[in-house]
Amino acid sequence: MAYDATKMKDYEIAEAAEANMPLPYEWAEKLGLQKDEIIPMGRICKLDFMKIADRLKDRPDGKFIEVTAITPTPLGEGKTTTTMGLTEGLGKRGVNVGAAIRQPSGGPTMNIKGTAAGGGNALAIPMTEFSLGLTGDLNDIMNAHNLGMVALTARMQHERNYDDAELAKRNLRRLDIDPTRVEFGWIIDFCAQALRNIIIGIGGRMDGYMMQSRFGIAVSSEIMAILAVATDLKDLRERIGKIIVAYDKKGNPVTTEDLEVAGAMTAFMRNAINPTLMSTAEYQPVLVHAGPFANIAIGQSSIIADRIGLKMFDYHITESGFAADIGFEKFWNVKCRFSGHTPHVSVLTATIRALKMHGGGPKVVPGRPLPEEYTKENVGLVEKGCENLVHHINTIRKAGINPVVCINAFHTDTKDEIAAVRRAAEAAGARCALSEHWAKGGDGALELADAVIDACNDKVDFKFLYPLEMPLRQRVEVIAKEVYGADGVSWTPEAEAKAKMFEENPEYKDFATMMVKTHLSLSHDPTLKGVPKGWTLPIRDVLIYAGAKFLCPMAGTISLMPGTSSDPAFRRIDVDTETGKVLGLF
Amino acid sequence: MAYDATKMKDYEIAEAAEANMPLPYEWAEKLGLQKDEIIPMGRICKLDFMKIADRLKDRPDGKFIEVTAITPTPLGEGKTTTTMGLTEGLGKRGVNVGAAIRQPSGGPTMNIKGTAAGGGNALAIPMTEFSLGLTGDLNDIMNAHNLGMVALTARMQHERNYDDAELAKRNLRRLDIDPTRVEFGWIIDFCAQALRNIIIGIGGRMDGYMMQSRFGIAVSSEIMAILAVATDLKDLRERIGKIIVAYDKKGNPVTTEDLEVAGAMTAFMRNAINPTLMSTAEYQPVLVHAGPFANIAIGQSSIIADRIGLKMFDYHITESGFAADIGFEKFWNVKCRFSGHTPHVSVLTATIRALKMHGGGPKVVPGRPLPEEYTKENVGLVEKGCENLVHHINTIRKAGINPVVCINAFHTDTKDEIAAVRRAAEAAGARCALSEHWAKGGDGALELADAVIDACNDKVDFKFLYPLEMPLRQRVEVIAKEVYGADGVSWTPEAEAKAKMFEENPEYKDFATMMVKTHLSLSHDPTLKGVPKGWTLPIRDVLIYAGAKFLCPMAGTISLMPGTSSDPAFRRIDVDTETGKVLGLF
Repeated sequence: MAYDATKMKDYEIAEAAEANMPLPYEWAEKLGLQKDEIIPMGRICKLDFMKIADRLKDRPDGKFIEVTAITPTPLGEGKTTTTMGLTEGLGKRGVNVGAAIRQPSGGPTMNIKGTAAGGGNALAIPMTEFSLGLTGDLNDIMNAHNLGMVALTARMQHERNYDDAELAKRNLRRLDIDPTRVEFGWIIDFCAQALRNIIIGIGGRMDGYMMQSRFGIAVSSEIMAILAVATDLKDLRERIGKIIVAYDKKGNPVTTEDLEVAGAMTAFMRNAINPTLMSTAEYQPVLVHAGPFANIAIGQSSIIADRIGLKMFDYHITESGFAADIGFEKFWNVKCRFSGHTPHVSVLTATIRALKMHGGGPKVVPGRPLPEEYTKENVGLVEKGCENLVHHINTIRKAGINPVVCINAFHTDTKDEIAAVRRAAEAAGARCALSEHWAKGGDGALELADAVIDACNDKVDFKFLYPLEMPLRQRVEVIAKEVYGADGVSWTPEAEAKAKMFEENPEYKDFATMMVKTHLSLSHDPTLKGVPKGWTLPIRDVLIYAGAKFLCPMAGTISLMPGTSSDPAFRRIDVDTETGKVLGLF
Repeated sequence: MAYDATKMKDYEIAEAAEANMPLPYEWAEKLGLQKDEIIPMGRICKLDFMKIADRLKDRPDGKFIEVTAITPTPLGEGKTTTTMGLTEGLGKRGVNVGAAIRQPSGGPTMNIKGTAAGGGNALAIPMTEFSLGLTGDLNDIMNAHNLGMVALTARMQHERNYDDAELAKRNLRRLDIDPTRVEFGWIIDFCAQALRNIIIGIGGRMDGYMMQSRFGIAVSSEIMAILAVATDLKDLRERIGKIIVAYDKKGNPVTTEDLEVAGAMTAFMRNAINPTLMSTAEYQPVLVHAGPFANIAIGQSSIIADRIGLKMFDYHITESGFAADIGFEKFWNVKCRFSGHTPHVSVLTATIRALKMHGGGPKVVPGRPLPEEYTKENVGLVEKGCENLVHHINTIRKAGINPVVCINAFHTDTKDEIAAVRRAAEAAGARCALSEHWAKGGDGALELADAVIDACNDKVDFKFLYPLEMPLRQRVEVIAKEVYGADGVSWTPEAEAKAKMFEENPEYKDFATMMVKTHLSLSHDPTLKGVPKGWTLPIRDVLIYAGAKFLCPMAGTISLMPGTSSDPAFRRIDVDTETGKVLGLF
C-alpha cells in the first residue's frame, strides 16, 4: 500500500519505508548473491563488482531499459522518479527488476533544497545516506584527483629547485611542464565559487609553484567521468594513467603516469569501483554508481553498474541525464559503444507542464509560483508542445528503438490534456502510458510496466548514429542535424584548428564525441523551446579528456564550479543530538 | 606463534594475520556487544558509540593505561608498537583488554614510506584500510570543515553584493566580516605545499571574495581537535558551533553558528563520531578514532574511544602522542580533565637508541644509516642518557602515577645496556620491563603485561598539575618549570597582550592550555638532548580554538601544511588490477 504523498513529505515517506528496508545480508538472499559479494557499509552495502561479474559471466544479460526525457523545464520532469516508479511497477508484476542511478553531489545538496532520490512513492532509500556522501565514492574521487594535483605542483617545485643531476639522484627526469599550460585543477564537492579562480604556490622555494589554478566541483572531475565509463579495474587504471594534467614546453602532453601518481590515485578508487546497493520505497534493488556531469561527461550511472545489473536482473533499468538530445544521445553513441550493451527500449518521460512550456506557455522560474497556464487545463498548449516530444521520439527511433512515452502524472493534469499526449505519441508510432508512481508507487506504474514489458519483445535493430571512422567535425554535423534539428554547424577558428589536430591524430580515433550543450533547448540557446528551426550550432572550443577518452565540442559555456546562493540549504540542516538523525535535508 | 619479523615485512605479517581476522559480527560475540552496536564497513566496522555508552553506563570502568615515551629520536621510539605489544601481552595473560590509537593522515602515507600501525608482530590490522582512509572519518572532517569555509566565503560575497534590505529579505543580518581577520582556512588530507598560501575569490562579483587564504592538512583541522575531545554528540555539536572563523570589523568573533552552518557541518560528522574497530595481529581489539595534531591539539585518540573502551575492556590502553612532556602532559591536564577519566598507570616507552642519543650520541637523521654508536654496545652513553628517562618518570609521578618503563627491545641491544636502564628506572622508583613484542608478539610482552597488571593495583592519588583557577600565564610557567625543566618563561609583547586578554575574559576560564613545543627536546630547541639546563621558554603567540576550547601558547613554529618531497611514497603505490589489492603501501 502506498503512502499518501499529498500529505507526507518525501523524507517522511523515506523514513517510514526505511523501517522495513532489507539489510545488507538480506539482499544477498533476495538477489541470489553470495555472502562475500556483499560489502556492508552501515545499513546499506556495496556489491563486489569483480566477484559478481566473474561468477555470472556466462549468464545471459537481462532486458536493458533506458529512461530519458523530453526537453525539461528548469524544474526537471521526474526522470529519477519515473525510473524508481517503473522499477516498482515491474516489481509489482513479479518481474526480477533493478535500476541504476547516479549519486548526487554534495554541492547542490547543501545549496538547493531537494533531493535527487525521486519523489513521493517513487523514491530511493535510505535518503540520508544518499544525500550525504553515500559509501564515500565522491570522497575517494576527491582524494584520487587532488593527489594528482599534489604530484603535479610538487614536481613543478622540485624541477625548479633542482638541477638535472639532483633530479637523476631521485630517478626523476625533467618533465619541463609549461606553467601556462596546466590543464588539471583541484576538486571539492561543494559549490565553492571562491575557489573558482585562485593563485596558488605563494611563498618561497618550498611552497610549491606560483601559478593560476582552480577548483571544480567533484562531480566534474575527469576521475568521475572515467568511473562512469570504465568497464573494469584494469580499464580504470589505464584511463587514470592517461589523464593529461599539463603540456610541456614543447607542447607534448604530461600525464599522471608521467608523474608516477596514477597507481596511487587508483588505490584511492579501489572501493569506489563497486556500486552501492540501495532500495526503492517498495524494496526493489537500486544500484547507485558514479554521478558524472551531463555536459563534459556522460551524465549517467556507470557501465560497471549496468554490467552487473544486466546479470543480476531480468529487467535492468538505467537512467540517462538531461533530455534525450543530450542524455539519450550520449547513452546511445558513447555509453553503449564503450560497453557493448544494447538497449531493448527507451522510456521517454514527459510532463504536461513541460509540454505546455514547449507549446508557448510562460517562462517557468525555479522558486517562483507556476503561472496559471500550468495549473489549469489548456489542451491547446499541450498539443502544440507535443512537437518537442515527437522530435525526441524520432531521435530515439534513429537508434532502432521504438520508445515508450511515459506521462509522469501530476494531480493538476486533466483527462483531455493526457489524451492529447497519447494521440501525439501514438501518431508518431510510440507506445504511451500514464504513470502515477508518485502518488501510488508501483501500483500507479502498472500501465507503464506493461508497456515496457511489451516493448521489450520488439525486435531491436540497434545502430549507432555514426561510425567511429567518421571524423570529429562530421560527427558533430550529424549530431547537430539529426538529433538537435540544426541546419548546420559553425566553428570558431580555434575550435576548428583543434578539431583538425584531433582528427589527424590516430590516437584519438576511438575517442567519444561528448557534446557540451544546454539541455533546456534542442538548440544551444536555452530560451528557445519546442523544436527551434533555422539555426546553426556554434562550436567555440574542443576539450580533450584523454583518460576518459572524450573529445568535447563546446556548444555552450560550462561552469565546473557552481556558486552557493545567499539562502543555501545548509542553513536549515542540523543533527538531533539525542538520536543522531540528520534534520532538514529534504 | 609469532611471525618471523626479521624475515617478513610488516605488510607481509599483516596480510598473513588478516586471513584469520574476526569479521564485524564475529567481534560482537567476542566482545559481548549487541549486533546493532556493530556498524560493518567492509571487513572492519564502526562501533555505535551512543548505543554502547548508553547500555553500559552503569558498568564500572576498567583499568586505564596510558602509553607515552621518552624524548624520541626523529625516527620515533615505537609507542604504537608498544601499545599493540602490551595489548597482545595482556591478551596472552587471558585478560579482557583493548587499545585506542589514532588514525594516520593521508599526507604522510603518500609522502613517506611507512605506516603508523606499529610493526613486526605488534601491528594493527588490516593495514590497507588503516593507511588509506579507514572508515572515512578524515573525509567527513574534510567535508565538515570545508563547508564552513564555503559558508564564510559565500557570505562575504553576498554581504558585499547586497544591501541590508536585500539581506533582510533572506533573513540574514550583516555579519560585517573583516577580510583581514579571517582565521579559518581550508583543509585537504595531503602534503600540498602549493596550497599553503593562496589567493582566492579572483574574478567578478559572483566569484566569492578576493582575499588571502590557506589550506592546512586535514589532521590539523579544529574539527579533528574537537572530535578528539568531545564527550558525546551534543558536546560535538556545541563545540562545532563555537569555532571562530573570523572577526567582524568591530573585533567581535564570528562563529560557524553565526554563519548558520554548524548544524550541517555536524551532519557530516554523524558517522565519524563512532570509533572504528580494528585488530592487533593477535586479534585483540583496537579502537581507532581521531588523529589530531600533537601540537595545536591533544595528539591522541578520542575521549569517546576511551569512554567505550573503559566500559568494554577490563584493561583499556590509550596512546599519547609524542614524548611525555607533550603527550603525557596533555593527557594528564587536558584529556583527563575534559573526560573525567583517571588513569591507573602510564607506560613510558624507551629505546636504547634514544637513550644513547640523549647520552651524547651523534645526530640521528632519517634516511641515513645509523652511526655505529647506535648499533654497537656503549653502556656509557646509555647510562648518561637515562637522565632524560628519569626526568619523564619524575614528571609522571607528579600526577600521582608511578610509571612502568618499557624498554622496546631492538636486536642490537645488549644485556649490559638493558641492565643500565633497569638500574636507572628502578633507582627512580619505577617498575621496568624489557619487551620483545616486535619479534615475539604477546609472548614477548609478558614481562611488560605483568608489570602493568601489578602497577594497576597501586593506589593512585591522581592530581592535576594546576587548578583551572590558575591564570594562563601562571599555568605556562608551571608547565615550563615542572614538566620541561625550564628556569622560566619569556613572552613577546604580542603574546603577553593576548594572554592578558584571554585571562580577563571569564568565557575562557575553563579552556585547556594546549602547549605548542617541539617533542624532540624537553626544551623549545630540538637540538638540545638529554635534560637541558639553564634556559627560558619563549612564548611568541597564543592561538585560540574556541570550539575545541584550547588556548595554545606557542613555544615554537607550527606548520599546518607539510610538503611533498621530491621522492614521495606515492611513486611506488599501485593496484593489482586482477585482485584489487593495493601494492607498495608499506
